[in-house]
Amino acid sequence: MKGFAMLCIGKVGWIEKERPACGPLDAIVRPLAIAPCTSDIHTVWEGAIGDRHNMILGHEAVGEVVETGALVRDFKPGDRVIVPAITPDWNAPESQRGYSMHSGGMLAGWKFSNFKDGVFGEYFHVNDADGNLALLPEGVDIAEATMLSDMVPTGFHGVELADVQFGDDVVVIGIGPVGLMAVAGAALRGAANLFAVGSRPNCVAAARGYGATDIINYRDGSIVEQVMEKTHGRGVDRVVIAGGDVNTMREAVIMLKPGGCIGNVNYLGSGDSIGIPRIDWGCGMGHKTIRGGLMPGGRVRMEKLAELVRLGRLDLAPLLTHRFTGFDKIEDALTLMHEKPRDLIKPVVVME
Amino acid sequence: MKGFAMLCIGKVGWIEKERPACGPLDAIVRPLAIAPCTSDIHTVWEGAIGDRHNMILGHEAVGEVVETGALVRDFKPGDRVIVPAITPDWNAPESQRGYSMHSGGMLAGWKFSNFKDGVFGEYFHVNDADGNLALLPEGVDIAEATMLSDMVPTGFHGVELADVQFGDDVVVIGIGPVGLMAVAGAALRGAANLFAVGSRPNCVAAARGYGATDIINYRDGSIVEQVMEKTHGRGVDRVVIAGGDVNTMREAVIMLKPGGCIGNVNYLGSGDSIGIPRIDWGCGMGHKTIRGGLMPGGRVRMEKLAELVRLGRLDLAPLLTHRFTGFDKIEDALTLMHEKPRDLIKPVVVME
Amino acid sequence: MKGFAMLCIGKVGWIEKERPACGPLDAIVRPLAIAPCTSDIHTVWEGAIGDRHNMILGHEAVGEVVETGALVRDFKPGDRVIVPAITPDWNAPESQRGYSMHSGGMLAGWKFSNFKDGVFGEYFHVNDADGNLALLPEGVDIAEATMLSDMVPTGFHGVELADVQFGDDVVVIGIGPVGLMAVAGAALRGAANLFAVGSRPNCVAAARGYGATDIINYRDGSIVEQVMEKTHGRGVDRVVIAGGDVNTMREAVIMLKPGGCIGNVNYLGSGDSIGIPRIDWGCGMGHKTIRGGLMPGGRVRMEKLAELVRLGRLDLAPLLTHRFTGFDKIEDALTLMHEKPRDLIKPVVVME
Amino acid sequence: MKGFAMLCIGKVGWIEKERPACGPLDAIVRPLAIAPCTSDIHTVWEGAIGDRHNMILGHEAVGEVVETGALVRDFKPGDRVIVPAITPDWNAPESQRGYSMHSGGMLAGWKFSNFKDGVFGEYFHVNDADGNLALLPEGVDIAEATMLSDMVPTGFHGVELADVQFGDDVVVIGIGPVGLMAVAGAALRGAANLFAVGSRPNCVAAARGYGATDIINYRDGSIVEQVMEKTHGRGVDRVVIAGGDVNTMREAVIMLKPGGCIGNVNYLGSGDSIGIPRIDWGCGMGHKTIRGGLMPGGRVRMEKLAELVRLGRLDLAPLLTHRFTGFDKIEDALTLMHEKPRDLIKPVVVME
Repeated sequence: MKGFAMLCIGKVGWIEKERPACGPLDAIVRPLAIAPCTSDIHTVWEGAIGDRHNMILGHEAVGEVVETGALVRDFKPGDRVIVPAITPDWNAPESQRGYSMHSGGMLAGWKFSNFKDGVFGEYFHVNDADGNLALLPEGVDIAEATMLSDMVPTGFHGVELADVQFGDDVVVIGIGPVGLMAVAGAALRGAANLFAVGSRPNCVAAARGYGATDIINYRDGSIVEQVMEKTHGRGVDRVVIAGGDVNTMREAVIMLKPGGCIGNVNYLGSGDSIGIPRIDWGCGMGHKTIRGGLMPGGRVRMEKLAELVRLGRLDLAPLLTHRFTGFDKIEDALTLMHEKPRDLIKPVVVME
Repeated sequence: MKGFAMLCIGKVGWIEKERPACGPLDAIVRPLAIAPCTSDIHTVWEGAIGDRHNMILGHEAVGEVVETGALVRDFKPGDRVIVPAITPDWNAPESQRGYSMHSGGMLAGWKFSNFKDGVFGEYFHVNDADGNLALLPEGVDIAEATMLSDMVPTGFHGVELADVQFGDDVVVIGIGPVGLMAVAGAALRGAANLFAVGSRPNCVAAARGYGATDIINYRDGSIVEQVMEKTHGRGVDRVVIAGGDVNTMREAVIMLKPGGCIGNVNYLGSGDSIGIPRIDWGCGMGHKTIRGGLMPGGRVRMEKLAELVRLGRLDLAPLLTHRFTGFDKIEDALTLMHEKPRDLIKPVVVME
Repeated sequence: MKGFAMLCIGKVGWIEKERPACGPLDAIVRPLAIAPCTSDIHTVWEGAIGDRHNMILGHEAVGEVVETGALVRDFKPGDRVIVPAITPDWNAPESQRGYSMHSGGMLAGWKFSNFKDGVFGEYFHVNDADGNLALLPEGVDIAEATMLSDMVPTGFHGVELADVQFGDDVVVIGIGPVGLMAVAGAALRGAANLFAVGSRPNCVAAARGYGATDIINYRDGSIVEQVMEKTHGRGVDRVVIAGGDVNTMREAVIMLKPGGCIGNVNYLGSGDSIGIPRIDWGCGMGHKTIRGGLMPGGRVRMEKLAELVRLGRLDLAPLLTHRFTGFDKIEDALTLMHEKPRDLIKPVVVME
Repeated sequence: MKGFAMLCIGKVGWIEKERPACGPLDAIVRPLAIAPCTSDIHTVWEGAIGDRHNMILGHEAVGEVVETGALVRDFKPGDRVIVPAITPDWNAPESQRGYSMHSGGMLAGWKFSNFKDGVFGEYFHVNDADGNLALLPEGVDIAEATMLSDMVPTGFHGVELADVQFGDDVVVIGIGPVGLMAVAGAALRGAANLFAVGSRPNCVAAARGYGATDIINYRDGSIVEQVMEKTHGRGVDRVVIAGGDVNTMREAVIMLKPGGCIGNVNYLGSGDSIGIPRIDWGCGMGHKTIRGGLMPGGRVRMEKLAELVRLGRLDLAPLLTHRFTGFDKIEDALTLMHEKPRDLIKPVVVME
């Protein structure tokens, strides 16, 4: 079969591979729609997870089941499924402790295009099909549904980590696709004033559409000062970090009230340390909680988020700025992601 | 009245002041027993809270009520009371949000020897007597009860912040009096393996008495390596930080499992930033939660912790290595705290 | 001053009383708009809280401060304020434990028209003004804002008690004004399928407007069977009870999944016992959590909920089916509430 | 192979069966020590789970692995293991939602002597060996370790459900083996006053040993009145129900403070309804949370609780009042459980 792969750090291309084998609990799926992710870019061009050779890329997909293992109960060939980026081993100790995304080791619930071939192949392998696939509900567009693999659950998890409550004032730093989903999630969870930090015009428009009450543009000066001014010096209850770098935490801590909470879902690709500003963190005693976590994956999570889309509570269309058709367009979509033109939020490729 | 005061940064001495006035909700208390705290040392000799002039020191005390305001319902002159180091404004917005220790601003629930005169005077003022005093239970020693003002609630809060659950493996970094209370608290909350990091012989002995299963001596090499070896490379579920400096967080994060939690109750007096090691924090996504907070004060907290002492579930005697008698011995006790001889855990002064 | 009062069980009327006195922490407020509540009806005609003589009724109001006590810091005569139905004693033990609505005893945070005169007078008394008043934000209609005293916080608290999470399936039983706010709150907190149980046409229309996906009419048969059918036998994740009687719990338990949660905010006025069905509760072991609680009151809660209204995230206009003008129309509004015509959701009286 | 079985409701006896087959994820285990449980008695003589024919009884065992499936990674023949009473399907939707004990349906995580043969056979089958077995730590007695299958996790879960915090006053109703473990768990989690309700002398002695501060004997009058008197009318923060019947909830609710929590782990075998007393439940609004749940099983839970035993934090010897030796003594042990002599806490059978 064909797949679009990372050949080595800095190089991508089409390769031929054996179709993956299906274990007793597993499924083999062919993609119906896929989306490239910034992580694919980090993986290839920044070597974020170390070197990989001839590894098929991609971890965001909607597909059709073509084969299932003997122990699979709930899925069969022909089923149209949402595939989460994170596919845990559900019986692992980490899963039993409530952190299935770290089953097998920190971040190891992420398998596609990390420990095994990803979804940019003619076929791909899904471990524990019953635990990790979700039926695509009737009426949900397959292109939009690819956003359920990673963008929606990651953005929404930022909101959960920040523990947004009714009437909270919330900052979301970064309004790429994950940040936009954090904006949508914060609004959907009852935030009051919702400050979205970003500058690109179509992201700004989408942020407003998803419920941001204020846009904070870092080109207009310190984002901390802007937020503090808008909150009359009080700061906010919650910060979701969905962009920036290791220095962003400092800003988040400063603008947070004591008793507040920061939820980071931004992949931090470089730097030795993330700095917590000592004094603004109350010299260690300010009750400004710092959380950061990989999205929860698996079947139930996909089913629940898909219902929000099916019912029209969450509209994913604004994320999809660039649509391609045909398996061979994966390369173009990834290139676009790499080049990141100013009007890009997210590209998607629908197979024929 | 007389009081032992910070005259300015670096200087202490006895001063004369007016006896404080009693507002309608307040109480005036005379100390029966007091204890100096490392914070007093930071305040005077490190200028930790900025300069102060002729401010009476001290925030750990058991006393006798001598006057109460017209609106006070539950206390009267003659009552023997535990006085918490933190005396919140209970109707403040921060208190209503669950963080009374930050009522009036971050850390501002701490008033004694911070915003007003402390407890090292012949009399001292307690705001909101009904909300912030607790009757000393029969049978609890007044010297030991001074540990309820700060050492017990601070150490125990570290355990709460780290969210220790049945069977968790826990590290407590630092085994001064707060760290020892964190050890006691972790054991009392169901920790399994309990690694106490410290080296001073009497602290080590006390830590074992309070339930530590292993002592980690930083003089024997990296504490991270020692903990990882003892846990077969798995790390621990919880870390309570009750000592060290801005670099200690790095060690805590490395030895923590994904899904684990750090509770800091150590005052961090210097350094610009507290560093979270990026890779060991899962590049932002490892679900290693970082909390740090000032102890909760107030009446109910004191009452509950005092019951643990009264019932013999918590023995505070091992903390009190040095006992003085007489109001004028406050100076000696503070000097001892400043000099910190190797056999010191905590000094206490009982009035005659 | 004049006030509309409960004369005794079953009788209401206008009375003359002294204007209430203002303690050092308190405020005296004159109403700008008020709303009667079903509780007023229970109080008068069912004797729900026992007999009361010449007690001014009412606990839902927006008003203008006319006097403040000497210790009040944040309010002054002329301020327009939202007055919560629940005005806790913030330093009480119950408040310190996180349950300010029970300060002074179970349910005793409810003072208006319970332990003291209510808001249907020319003036009324508010304890702890700094802790219990909130400024009315610019741009929020005073008639609509009366819904913030009780309807919004009660309905929203049902959602909090039921612990609604992203993508949960939720039943709200009862779609009077509190139930409608529970529907709005559940949608605003990320519910997926949202089943509203009720039958009156304008309530049904409002429920749909607030986000209900399905209406369950008990006139069409068992609500349990209807919900089970719509959920393919799986039941729901959460149930908010905002109507019914002591038998309603049985239905809620049956339709709930193991691991689910019930939040009751319905006042249960008669019956000895609320029955939990033994087998459907897993013979005691089904992890179907049952919570019920009085709304949290106080200043911060009002401020946060008012922001949701100011920002347009919550539209209160659909609740106000009947508007009256003039203080003397309080009687008509209460009579309307008592008669409960089929097109009533909530009456409101705006003063001139 | 031989097994001691329920022949039908009301009848037990030895039967011959095929040794169970081992699926790819499973293990076959031979018991080293077993204990009968009150549930076995309910199952046989009360028909609690309906009729069963020739079903081997028992769900509390320590054993030796004799066979493992091809996909099992962490266990091999010869391993000595603790077997939890509850062995979830870890990838089930209920498990993904955090309630693995209900995987496959309410209570369906309980498989031994419910849906399949139990542990009173020469061999028994364990589903998902990697997820559901735990190595028996060195130094833990095999007879005592049988208490880890059910008695310890059930009693401790009651404490978790009741959410015991530092300094809470707690009632444990029932001091059979589960109740005693609830007493031990409450003390180990920081309870202050700990009221144990029971009367049998050796249970009372064990309760005191495990940390009860007061014994409430229902033969001395109403347990509610006794608790209210001892708490000066305030009631308690938490109640764990580990005994009684459908009427016990009423007592628990009455003695609970608003804001408190009840954790039921008692199997309720008869009665249509569990009654919540309306008025004492605050007419629906008293914030007295009611939880009840089956113990969490699985590997990690067993490992954590076993560490508490290995480290001497929990002494299980007092539970084992009757010890038998030899597989064929299972019958005697079960008979003893059925007859329940006054000096019985728990019998155990160690194989030769």
